[in-house]
Amino acid sequence: MKQIKVGILGFGTVGAGVADGLLKHRDAMAKRLGVDILLKSVADLDVTTDRGVALPDGVLTPDAAAVVADPEIDIVVETIGGTGVAKKFVMDALAAKKRVVTANKKLLAEYGREIFDSAAANGVDIYFGAAVGGGIPIIRVLREGLAGNDIESIHGILNGTCNYILTRMEREGLAFDEVLKDAQRLGYAEADPSLDIDGFDTAHKACILAALAYGFQPALSEVQVEGIRHLSGTDVRYAADIGYRIKLLAVVAKDGGEVEVGVHPTLVPTSHMLAGVNDAFNAVMVKGDLSDRTMYYGRGAGRAPTASTVIGDIGDIARNIAHGETRWGRAAPNYAEGQVKLRPAAEISSKHYLRFMLADRPGAMGVVASALGRHGVSILALTQKDNSGNGPVPVVALTHRAKASDISAALEEIRKSGVTDEDPIRLRVL
Amino acid sequence: MKQIKVGILGFGTVGAGVADGLLKHRDAMAKRLGVDILLKSVADLDVTTDRGVALPDGVLTPDAAAVVADPEIDIVVETIGGTGVAKKFVMDALAAKKRVVTANKKLLAEYGREIFDSAAANGVDIYFGAAVGGGIPIIRVLREGLAGNDIESIHGILNGTCNYILTRMEREGLAFDEVLKDAQRLGYAEADPSLDIDGFDTAHKACILAALAYGFQPALSEVQVEGIRHLSGTDVRYAADIGYRIKLLAVVAKDGGEVEVGVHPTLVPTSHMLAGVNDAFNAVMVKGDLSDRTMYYGRGAGRAPTASTVIGDIGDIARNIAHGETRWGRAAPNYAEGQVKLRPAAEISSKHYLRFMLADRPGAMGVVASALGRHGVSILALTQKDNSGNGPVPVVALTHRAKASDISAALEEIRKSGVTDEDPIRLRVL
Repeated sequence: MKQIKVGILGFGTVGAGVADGLLKHRDAMAKRLGVDILLKSVADLDVTTDRGVALPDGVLTPDAAAVVADPEIDIVVETIGGTGVAKKFVMDALAAKKRVVTANKKLLAEYGREIFDSAAANGVDIYFGAAVGGGIPIIRVLREGLAGNDIESIHGILNGTCNYILTRMEREGLAFDEVLKDAQRLGYAEADPSLDIDGFDTAHKACILAALAYGFQPALSEVQVEGIRHLSGTDVRYAADIGYRIKLLAVVAKDGGEVEVGVHPTLVPTSHMLAGVNDAFNAVMVKGDLSDRTMYYGRGAGRAPTASTVIGDIGDIARNIAHGETRWGRAAPNYAEGQVKLRPAAEISSKHYLRFMLADRPGAMGVVASALGRHGVSILALTQKDNSGNGPVPVVALTHRAKASDISAALEEIRKSGVTDEDPIRLRVL
Repeated sequence: MKQIKVGILGFGTVGAGVADGLLKHRDAMAKRLGVDILLKSVADLDVTTDRGVALPDGVLTPDAAAVVADPEIDIVVETIGGTGVAKKFVMDALAAKKRVVTANKKLLAEYGREIFDSAAANGVDIYFGAAVGGGIPIIRVLREGLAGNDIESIHGILNGTCNYILTRMEREGLAFDEVLKDAQRLGYAEADPSLDIDGFDTAHKACILAALAYGFQPALSEVQVEGIRHLSGTDVRYAADIGYRIKLLAVVAKDGGEVEVGVHPTLVPTSHMLAGVNDAFNAVMVKGDLSDRTMYYGRGAGRAPTASTVIGDIGDIARNIAHGETRWGRAAPNYAEGQVKLRPAAEISSKHYLRFMLADRPGAMGVVASALGRHGVSILALTQKDNSGNGPVPVVALTHRAKASDISAALEEIRKSGVTDEDPIRLRVL
C-alpha cells in the first residue's frame, strides 16, 4: 500500500486535534482510502506543553521550515493561523510542490488569490475545507455536490461566539454586555472578542464562499460588515414578539452580473431552519437553481470538528494520489475574471425591521409613515408598543422589500424631523 | 478541452431533469471542471411524450442497449428505476467498462454488492449520490467529508411523502387516511403508496447508508421496518402535548461489532433540528466521533433536486478523468467482510413512548406500572389523560432507555392482564 507522509505546522488546538485524529484513525482510513497516511512531523516553537496527544518519538520539532523543506513530506497542514508566518510557510510549501491543507480563513480571505495562483503555478492542490463552517463540509458541497447548479444565494450562521450570545440574549432576556462577559468566562468568547462580535470572522468566511460560488472574491474592505455589539435586548425581544429570531448572517448572493457579499444581524422567521440553529452551532443554507434550498449544520469550531474536516481534506489528497492523478487544481476556486462585480451596499434590497423611539405627541407617527412613503418604503406591519405614558413610544415597523439607500434616506428625514428620541434602529429581515 | 460523452437511460422525471440540467449548465460546468460534458444520447421506449426539454436532433432514441454499447459514450446515467431492465443495463454498462451514475435506491439496496463487485472487477466507478436524500449531497459527505470519522450514528428523514403526511397530521390535527387521500390528490403520494408509507423506501436508503458508513449492507428482509400507516392522530397529538413531533426515522448506528439498521416512527423533541424538518423536505443527522453532530437538509425528491445530485456525480467523474486518473473505485462502499453483524431488533435499547387505554377501575394503573417494573422498564414520565369518565382512560408513559425485548415482555404481560381495552401503542423516542 502506498504511504503518504504528512507534516503539521502548529501544535495548538487544531493541530493537536488533527494529529490525534490521524494517529487514531490511521488503520480505518487506510482501509477506506487505500493509502496509508503517516504523520511524520509536527512543528511548533513550543515543544514542551502537553497537548494531550501522544506523538511518536521524533515527530515533534520546533523547526517548521525543515518540515516544509522535507522532501519526504507530501502534504503540509497549516494550523498556525493568522497571516504572518502562516502565509510564508504556505507559500514555501506550495513552491516546494507540496500539497497543502489549511483551515486559515483569514489567510484565504486576505491573500486567497495570491495563494491559489501559486498553487496553480506549482501544479499542486490546496484544500481548505475547515476555513468555513469548521466541522461542516460546506466547502466540499459547494465545490462538488452542487457543481451542477447556478448558486442563487448562500445564507450562513458562521460564527459560534455570536450565535451563542444571540441565543442566550433571546432565551434569557439578557443584555449583550452581560452575555458577552459570561461567554468570555465560559470560554465561548475571546478576551478580545472583536474579530467575532464585530462580524469580521464571518466576513472572512463570506469572502471565501463568494470565491467558490461565483469565482469572485471581494476585498474585505469593500464588504459591508455589521456585528452584534450594538444590538439591543429590546430589539431581540420585539423581534421575538413578532415571530423572528435575530441571527448574524453572512449573505452571498448573485443577481445578474452583481454579487452581494455582506454580514448583518438579521431577523429570521422562527419557522425557518436557520432560526433553529442555536448556541455555538453553525449552519449554511444554499439555494441552487436545481437543488433548491439545502442546509448544512454542525459545529463551526473546536478541536475535533475542525480536525474532522482537515482530515477529510487530507483524505481527498490521499485518494487523488492513490488513483494515479497526474494533474492538480481540483480544490481552488475558478475565478471568473471581470465577469461579476460587487453590488454596492446602497443598492441591496431587502425587507427591514425598523424601530423608532417616538415623542409621545400627535403627528409623530404621521411623520414616520409619510417619510417612509415618500421614499417608496412600503410598510408590511407596524406596532406601537405600550409604554404606559413613560417617555418616548417604541414603534416597530416591518417593511416590504426596499433598497438600503431608500431606507437610509427615509430614516435621515425622520431623524431630522425631531420626532425621534434616539437614532432609529434598522435591521434586515430574511 | 477534453470532451466526455454522456448517455441517459430513461426520459422520465429524473432523466428529463438531468438532460435539462446538462444542456443548460454545459458552459458553466466546462469552466468549473475543465471538461466539456456532451449529452450524446437519451434512451426511452417512449420517444413521443413531450418532457419539456428541447433535446438536440438525434439525441433521443428508443434503443437503450445501443446507448450502453456505444463506444463513444463514457458515462451511462441510469434513471429507469426498479430492478428489472435497470439492473440489466447497469450491469451491461459496467461490463462495457463505462462509468455509471444511478439514483436507483431499490437497485442498490437489493443488488448493491453484486453491482459494486462488478464495477470493481471492470475497474470503473459507479456513483449513486441521488439514491439517498435526492438533492442533499449526503452520500458524498459520508464518503469524503466525514472520511476521518468513526460514524457513531445516522438518523434520517428520508421519505418526503411520509414527512408531508406527518407534518399535516400534526399541524392540522387530521387522521392519517384523510391526509393520505389529500396527498394523493396533490401528487405528494402515489396511487399505490405502500413503498413510501410502509417504510420500505426509507429502508432501501438506510441499507445504502449502512454500506457506506460501516461497509455492511444488511438484506432488506432482515431490517426492522415500521411505517406510518397505523399511526394514530391521538398519538401525534399526545406527543405534541409533551413536546415531541413524530417523524419516520431511518436509524443506522454502530455499537461495538453490531450495526443497528431500522425504520421507525419516532418521537423527536421539538427543539431537535430534525423536528424542524417539515413538509416534503428530508434531512440526515450524522454523528461522527470527531465532527460531533452534523445535519444535511433539503429536497429528497423531485426532478430538479435529484438532477442536481446526479449532475454532481457526473461532474465527479468528469473531474477524475480531467485530472488524469488511471485507477477507479472511488465511489463504492468499502465492505468490511464479517467484521460487523446486524444487531437483533430485540436487543436494541431506546427510550419509548407507550400508550395504554386502561379500564377505568382501581388497580389498572398498578398492573401497568408493576409489569413495566418487573421487566426492568423504568418510567421517565407518566400522564393519565382526562376522558371525563367516558370509557377507557388513555395513559401515556415515557420510559428511560429499555431493551425492545423487555418492552415487548412487559406489554405482553399487560395485554394478558385484561386491564387494557386496545393493544398498547409503542413508539421509539429519540
